[in-house]
Amino acid sequence: MMNKQRLYPVRNISGQSGRRSFLSLGGLGLLSAGVTQKLDAAQSPSWSEAGGTFSNYGKPADSERQVIRWISANPAVPGEGVSWTPLHELEGTITPNGLHFERHHNGVPVIDPDSWSLLITGASERSLRYSLADLHRYPLQSRILFIECGGNSNTLWNPLPVQAAAGHLHGLVSGCEWTGVPLSVLLNEAGVETSGKWLIADGLDASGVTVSLPIAKCLDDVLVALYQNGEALRPENGYPARLVVPGWEGIVNVKWLRSLTLAEAPLWSRFDTVSYTDLHKDGIADRMSFEMGVKSIITSPSAGQHLDAPGEYEVRGLAWTGAGRVAKVELSADGGRTWVPAQLQEPVLDRALTRFRLPWRWAGRAQVLMSRATDSTAAR
Amino acid sequence: MMNKQRLYPVRNISGQSGRRSFLSLGGLGLLSAGVTQKLDAAQSPSWSEAGGTFSNYGKPADSERQVIRWISANPAVPGEGVSWTPLHELEGTITPNGLHFERHHNGVPVIDPDSWSLLITGASERSLRYSLADLHRYPLQSRILFIECGGNSNTLWNPLPVQAAAGHLHGLVSGCEWTGVPLSVLLNEAGVETSGKWLIADGLDASGVTVSLPIAKCLDDVLVALYQNGEALRPENGYPARLVVPGWEGIVNVKWLRSLTLAEAPLWSRFDTVSYTDLHKDGIADRMSFEMGVKSIITSPSAGQHLDAPGEYEVRGLAWTGAGRVAKVELSADGGRTWVPAQLQEPVLDRALTRFRLPWRWAGRAQVLMSRATDSTAAR
Repeated sequence: MMNKQRLYPVRNISGQSGRRSFLSLGGLGLLSAGVTQKLDAAQSPSWSEAGGTFSNYGKPADSERQVIRWISANPAVPGEGVSWTPLHELEGTITPNGLHFERHHNGVPVIDPDSWSLLITGASERSLRYSLADLHRYPLQSRILFIECGGNSNTLWNPLPVQAAAGHLHGLVSGCEWTGVPLSVLLNEAGVETSGKWLIADGLDASGVTVSLPIAKCLDDVLVALYQNGEALRPENGYPARLVVPGWEGIVNVKWLRSLTLAEAPLWSRFDTVSYTDLHKDGIADRMSFEMGVKSIITSPSAGQHLDAPGEYEVRGLAWTGAGRVAKVELSADGGRTWVPAQLQEPVLDRALTRFRLPWRWAGRAQVLMSRATDSTAAR
Repeated sequence: MMNKQRLYPVRNISGQSGRRSFLSLGGLGLLSAGVTQKLDAAQSPSWSEAGGTFSNYGKPADSERQVIRWISANPAVPGEGVSWTPLHELEGTITPNGLHFERHHNGVPVIDPDSWSLLITGASERSLRYSLADLHRYPLQSRILFIECGGNSNTLWNPLPVQAAAGHLHGLVSGCEWTGVPLSVLLNEAGVETSGKWLIADGLDASGVTVSLPIAKCLDDVLVALYQNGEALRPENGYPARLVVPGWEGIVNVKWLRSLTLAEAPLWSRFDTVSYTDLHKDGIADRMSFEMGVKSIITSPSAGQHLDAPGEYEVRGLAWTGAGRVAKVELSADGGRTWVPAQLQEPVLDRALTRFRLPWRWAGRAQVLMSRATDSTAAR
């Protein structure tokens, strides 16, 4: 009988390979025939009256109202701070637009799409100005990509471990399908001069975010993004247009894009030099550090979550790398003494969040779960 | 000089292959040096005051308020009707959750996730009941998939062509990343008996949607979905749990899932027999028709959209098939006399919306644009 097989082939986090029954879980709900009959006869109240009506634009269930971006704002500067994607409440690899992390330096500007335009100027054969309607006529490209703030996970600098859920420690990363015009198309149209070695991009927000990007990256895979998960960018994610710079730190993915100026040298703006830099132990900092490193986090179980009882669970998490694809994620349930490869959700996409999972049998005692990731550069 | 190349290699819809300049577009915005200087000096009002604050859960820009689901409801039955995804306003392949199409027969029930449970019973070795917390402990799987209502595009039955935008004609299809427990895991745990050849699934809404599914499909790739684009299912898409049946007509993707009963024969419910059937010209109808056919639609340009002036545009659309992958989409700009292959956005995923695009030079006169798709079964 084709349906006889009740065992699910999994690889247990303890390293046992092979088939394992989930009856320990389903067994919790095992019903006697009599009980089944009684439950079958029970009417759901939702069966006896019509439900709610249609909506032009939906929102989450009221009972999911705890699933929100957690806001850490600086009271001294209006609109300065971050809001965190609640990674420990989410699954899969796409972040819904309403929960994409935010990092603003002086709030979210309201931009009129009809009067907005993008200027390309500087060391180019011609200066060009594109309206939003112009850009919509250009070839579009879609890519599922992560964006991570350069300051993500900085709570880990605390000398003592901070007990917080995954999203409150690491939630300045999100993953979306971004659709936009390849920047190379626009730059080629402007005609980059030999002296145009850097691109200075600035945004329309009150903090005047301005960053410098090497021209090679701009001609490679950068998008002038207009859509996020299918719909127009959200205001907090740069409406009506932003740069999306695959794999590079969030700040260079300039939101509310205003202008792109080709130049021989970086501007050395405060965003190039003072913040979003990497400080070394000797007190020297790298002024520019673009590519985000390989990283993995466990999103479930996570601090604040309750495990009902010992038994079968699944350890779940996300991994990503600015250098290419995640090649491998390993998990440890004994504080790093032994490691087991996790299952990676296919398709594993370049510079996108990669979901990993592995069944885990919890014995009911304290255990230290850890993850570690290796990316495609390891094979170079 | 590496950056000198200003021509973008594209294949024109007229069939010309090779490189083509977009300067006819950018030329619209060509600036003299003086104008550039003046514009550079202009201050944006958004630079002079702090922007809006952070939000726990975001929403679209006010200026995008026209991008909504269009509701066609039956005034005689509460909550009976559809709302359409505005495909002509969207790009990429993911539908944001707030704009996923709706098809309800008696409204959207409010389900309490804490008291909800899923019953599996009938021709099985044991009856099982899973709480939502139970299901969250099982192995999860994520897949980007389309769901299409069996009645999508039925306006095309009109004897005269209806002038309406793509989403208002074909918008009962959407694409999301769905994450859930493989149904096979739960069925194998229940132990399907030899006589369990069909699965009768019912939902908790007031219309009592009940459908019959062949067991082979249920043991193949069906999910008990808990997440949609990363977050918990939306109420209108089946919160807290629904079936997702890859490639099969919408109605069998039962929302607000209540129970799954294994049986020797289909139930022949009204959803199996009266509606969601295929009527042939001779008056005979196929009672069951599960797999959605291969299909393509042009989303831009679309009825109601205005082309500013003759020149370069991009024709964009979506294709999908219930049988596997989209292999090819072709476009015609002369009413079907000649056809040119469109570019397919990678990755082309199994049973997911596939975005196609092709540059098009509009000469300023009436033209009939058409698309046609071929799927992976053509190569069989």
